[in-house]
Amino acid sequence: MAGSLPKAGSRWSLGRPLDFRHGRVEMSHGAGGRATTQLVETLFQTALGDMGTQTGDDGAVLPPLAPGERLVMACDGHVVSPLFFPGGDIGCLAAHGTINDVAVMGARPLYLTASFILEEGFPLADLQRVAVSLGRACRDAGVAVVAGDTKVVERGKGDGVFIATTGVGALPAGRNIGGRQARPGDAILISGTVGEHGLAILAQREHLQFASEIVSDTAPLHTLIDALLAAAPGVHVMRDPTRGGLATVLNEIARQSGVGIDLDEAVIPVRADVAAACELLGLDPLYAANEGKVVVVVRAAEADAALAALRAHPLGRQATRIGTVIEDPQGFVQMRTRMGGRRLVDWLTGEQLPRIC
Amino acid sequence: MAGSLPKAGSRWSLGRPLDFRHGRVEMSHGAGGRATTQLVETLFQTALGDMGTQTGDDGAVLPPLAPGERLVMACDGHVVSPLFFPGGDIGCLAAHGTINDVAVMGARPLYLTASFILEEGFPLADLQRVAVSLGRACRDAGVAVVAGDTKVVERGKGDGVFIATTGVGALPAGRNIGGRQARPGDAILISGTVGEHGLAILAQREHLQFASEIVSDTAPLHTLIDALLAAAPGVHVMRDPTRGGLATVLNEIARQSGVGIDLDEAVIPVRADVAAACELLGLDPLYAANEGKVVVVVRAAEADAALAALRAHPLGRQATRIGTVIEDPQGFVQMRTRMGGRRLVDWLTGEQLPRIC
Repeated sequence: MAGSLPKAGSRWSLGRPLDFRHGRVEMSHGAGGRATTQLVETLFQTALGDMGTQTGDDGAVLPPLAPGERLVMACDGHVVSPLFFPGGDIGCLAAHGTINDVAVMGARPLYLTASFILEEGFPLADLQRVAVSLGRACRDAGVAVVAGDTKVVERGKGDGVFIATTGVGALPAGRNIGGRQARPGDAILISGTVGEHGLAILAQREHLQFASEIVSDTAPLHTLIDALLAAAPGVHVMRDPTRGGLATVLNEIARQSGVGIDLDEAVIPVRADVAAACELLGLDPLYAANEGKVVVVVRAAEADAALAALRAHPLGRQATRIGTVIEDPQGFVQMRTRMGGRRLVDWLTGEQLPRIC
Repeated sequence: MAGSLPKAGSRWSLGRPLDFRHGRVEMSHGAGGRATTQLVETLFQTALGDMGTQTGDDGAVLPPLAPGERLVMACDGHVVSPLFFPGGDIGCLAAHGTINDVAVMGARPLYLTASFILEEGFPLADLQRVAVSLGRACRDAGVAVVAGDTKVVERGKGDGVFIATTGVGALPAGRNIGGRQARPGDAILISGTVGEHGLAILAQREHLQFASEIVSDTAPLHTLIDALLAAAPGVHVMRDPTRGGLATVLNEIARQSGVGIDLDEAVIPVRADVAAACELLGLDPLYAANEGKVVVVVRAAEADAALAALRAHPLGRQATRIGTVIEDPQGFVQMRTRMGGRRLVDWLTGEQLPRIC
């Protein structure tokens, strides 16, 4: 009988408010009922400005692209440890990583989805910091978080928070940038110093103290790339050297395009503190991760224009030409060393730095 | 000097082949170097037919949608435990869950991205089973896996494999289906029996033995939905009752649309074995998860046509009209019970069944 129903007004209450100062993630936050809705509405939607779940529907409906524009999609799981590090955290990293994967295809990043996998007991205050950081990074980049999901696993079956993101962008008609486009004679540029993200994570994880704190370079690259492409439409390849670093990305491109690459070690920009830390730890900065740099392969005739455009942008001030694409069906990456010798720059083998992103 | 380079031919080798019978996931498989490439190329690309990573680029470039079509995006993290269960596994579940979230918006599912978060030590044989299952589910649904990512966390920091998927679909011009569209007088249909997925997982997890094995209903719903919308263009809302079950989904719709819902318990289809298992375990099948069912809210005048279309499809043979949308600004879901009384059907509270999907 209707008389047994709760009083009017009680219906919309989602239970006692979340305690953002002392509360922790509970299994019920992932069960799909009242507690999940409460977490989504009071924490995630506030932080992310989520279009998708604000309607409460299973998916987000988005406007059509402009005529002729193609879709670009990229995805990334983020399991960085520690979650907070100098220069950033897993939230902004998850945004930047996927925005950059879309941008290096030459596309304008538009939308992001974010799946959170939380460990029972994770502090809500930390979750809020992470979500706010992800939301801010997306807003700063003009990217809308359009759908999200939250799951919770038992204590000891996860590690605080993992975030998987997928990005969608719009690629203008006629633009064709990708790892197979490198041609002998092309110039190879890097937009700045290498290795900061990897060394910042490692220093934090191992509680290493250096004279100056090494800060992650995590940043969204799409405005830098816009400026680059306006000045140098003859860009053949772009890629952000994240896991595996500059050396691995150059090997990937060489293999994809069936070309060789000739590098000049002396001009590859490395900050003095990163170089010193690498020396101490026996690491090679060429294999350390970056989260705010882009490798550019461009027609030689446009190399100077491309460099000038990169250097005119705050994220590209130390852009440098570091090498040349050469003919080599074997796809070797080789380097003239600082000592004047030559050596092969191979793929990353093994696990130099696990859980770097 | 070039003389110090490895012999021709050795360059393309990615190391010793993966041992798919006895091998296990290692930290190096997530480090972004040679081992990651090997895992992607020999396991994932074979299983998934991945367009995105087969080019080796950071993102996948996809053709434009037809004029007037809008994008629909949905995402889901999958942490189901156990990973293999009667009727499916985390691989096909990850595909179906996201395909269905796109389909219930009225969109044609097109593309999927998949991020795998693996625990060190997870058997490669199990990973291959999961990836093959995900790939097959997508191919069967005509959905292309266009981008993927693999990360590895240390033993004890994950739980075998988690998979986060994002789906993209195309929504025809003029179609407007969503949780805010329910109107008093609309009929409420369910496409079949409820609770199988939840009970199949629970029985497996708790090693319960019933007279007959309860099998998950996991399935892609887009062809069922196609048939439904062709017969009944006046569908206002569709939603797949996964976590939280039928009861939670109806509460969400009532709240979104600002309406009440009146259910008839006696006609809600529940398999006898599911009902018996629920009785034994003290669970309510209305809150148990489904992975191959859809709740439909449709104009009353089209209810019969909608039911007939559902019943003509293999996945909808037991489709039933279970209730009616009524006026109620409080958004209550109420039910006439089998005993003839009335009760409130509230949101799922707490954690009836954690890690069900």
